[in-house]
Amino acid sequence: MQLDHLAIAVADLDAALTFYRDALGLELEGIEAVEQEGVRVAFLPLGDGESRIELVQPTREDTGIVKWMAKHGPGMHHVCLSVPNLESALARLAAHGCELINPQPVTREDGTRYAFIHPRSTFGVLVELYEKPE
Amino acid sequence: MQLDHLAIAVADLDAALTFYRDALGLELEGIEAVEQEGVRVAFLPLGDGESRIELVQPTREDTGIVKWMAKHGPGMHHVCLSVPNLESALARLAAHGCELINPQPVTREDGTRYAFIHPRSTFGVLVELYEKPE
Repeated sequence: MQLDHLAIAVADLDAALTFYRDALGLELEGIEAVEQEGVRVAFLPLGDGESRIELVQPTREDTGIVKWMAKHGPGMHHVCLSVPNLESALARLAAHGCELINPQPVTREDGTRYAFIHPRSTFGVLVELYEKPE
Repeated sequence: MQLDHLAIAVADLDAALTFYRDALGLELEGIEAVEQEGVRVAFLPLGDGESRIELVQPTREDTGIVKWMAKHGPGMHHVCLSVPNLESALARLAAHGCELINPQPVTREDGTRYAFIHPRSTFGVLVELYEKPE
């Protein structure tokens, strides 16, 4: 199991880049608009590039991340871990009584698949599991 | 710059391990009591072992982490990134006007050195920088 990304929710991607890129010195790999999810995402690789920080700015008012930021302010939104087999990871979690936000994997437009575990089961951390495509 | 660890604050380390070790399936490398800081820490390596999740349970009432948990509940406490040179990273951050909790590196009993950046400068995330010993 590897860290895929840390997602940090911010109101203004460009302002946040003045810290993460300019002051901290991380490389900005790119910025992508994800219409389906109503967000703009900046990708900043860590280490060997297998993991990254993602700065996530909502672009619509009806997104979950807007509601989350209204309550928490900007900050760490979720942690995404990549697993070799998503179904078996979800089965193991369910067998241990964990509350899954997505009991079945969700497929993105690009074909990648993920599922979120509820913070009630993780001691306060929103955890995403992600299976890397072959 | 690499992820060194994600620190997750929990009230009960053993309860948290039922999720992170038993249900999620991370390996537990060990548990250490850090008297100086008033915490017990469980180390759970990620990927190639360069990074890890640390579950942190306060063992005294006068620790910063107890105050933090009283406000936030359990959850993601800080993100630690390892840098090749801590002084030059801090100088760069200061030059960009970032608020440093530790403007000078702090040395642990084991000789490792770290400094924290205030969440006011990082868009809500408590960031620790750490210089790996030679």
